Amino acid sequence: MATLPSDPQAPTGRTPADADGEVLDETARDLLFREARTANSFTAEPVTDEQVREIYELVKWGPTAMNSQPLRLVAVRSPEARARLVPLMAEGNRAKTASAPLTLIVTADTDFHEHLPATFPHKRDARESLAAHPGRERIARFNASIQLGYLILGVRAIGLAAGPMAGFDAEGVKKEFLADGNQQPVAVVNIGRPGPDAWFPRNPRLEYEQVVRTI
Amino acid sequence: MATLPSDPQAPTGRTPADADGEVLDETARDLLFREARTANSFTAEPVTDEQVREIYELVKWGPTAMNSQPLRLVAVRSPEARARLVPLMAEGNRAKTASAPLTLIVTADTDFHEHLPATFPHKRDARESLAAHPGRERIARFNASIQLGYLILGVRAIGLAAGPMAGFDAEGVKKEFLADGNQQPVAVVNIGRPGPDAWFPRNPRLEYEQVVRTI
Repeated sequence: MATLPSDPQAPTGRTPADADGEVLDETARDLLFREARTANSFTAEPVTDEQVREIYELVKWGPTAMNSQPLRLVAVRSPEARARLVPLMAEGNRAKTASAPLTLIVTADTDFHEHLPATFPHKRDARESLAAHPGRERIARFNASIQLGYLILGVRAIGLAAGPMAGFDAEGVKKEFLADGNQQPVAVVNIGRPGPDAWFPRNPRLEYEQVVRTI
Repeated sequence: MATLPSDPQAPTGRTPADADGEVLDETARDLLFREARTANSFTAEPVTDEQVREIYELVKWGPTAMNSQPLRLVAVRSPEARARLVPLMAEGNRAKTASAPLTLIVTADTDFHEHLPATFPHKRDARESLAAHPGRERIARFNASIQLGYLILGVRAIGLAAGPMAGFDAEGVKKEFLADGNQQPVAVVNIGRPGPDAWFPRNPRLEYEQVVRTI
């Protein structure tokens, strides 16, 4: 298995075969899925760079098409940067974004193909064929959105709460934070410890029969 | 917490506050992220309806914008259905799709807003405002893609391997399997127990410093 040389959280040396048939225990199912909730307020406890790195070092392993990994994150921590972000959020998202110790602007790098010679080396023409591909931005957004799913669970995996939001001024965020032009904002995610009254009543989920059809 | 009456895997009664500060253990981090791999071959061991339900009963809890839950799944199990799917896959995806005991056609329901009166009841005009929304298909695809991230980890959570694929004839899949017209195919995911030579060498991931910028 290729582990990156500087990876501070290298896999433990177990192989996929070792894990065959293992399942996630009930506590972990609660932590990631069943009991986890979108937080709407946060305590002042800081989220450190080490915690953001711990999240990324899990999330990076989630699969993407052609190992494209278009996810990019702008971690907003300083009061100055937060003051630029809050007014760009939809009105209902401002107070919670102001209260979060760290907010991730989740973006899709539409120039992800520049990394393919390193990240997808066995397909030699991958970079060139994508350079002229009219669907490249769509591919970037699609795969970054899959990675956003991994990210939300990755935040929970290290014991923090996530507050993902789709309501913000995307053009404003691009102009204010992504001036280089190759990153498209996909979502904004508050992270931290849940604060007072962090949870709204849980909304119902669709039934299995409404979602799955077997043929 | 609102649990659906017929939910066979109701949460255990723990609240988010109980879980505050808990973290995912090392074995679970390996299972879901660090040691999990995209499988390229499968054994003949069947994937049962109960297993698909177990996956969904985890994945359904992952958050989506407005609790929109646009993910829909067509579970392809019968030899007849599989024979219709395999030729619609990109050439490099045909043999593995032929070998998988179950294949999920992952789609986005562009009519997800019809469920909002039940799933997002506190916003009374949600269905009406989305009915005329020109971005509804984009919203459906975005949220179904986030749910695809949850789904891939959910497959791993119950001890199976996932083989997600983006290479297929989307128009052909729509015509052959989604004739009702409101579901857009997003991905195709083989699931099962890994077979012989299931794993390619692992491709490298981007470094933290290439992905995260802190401000």
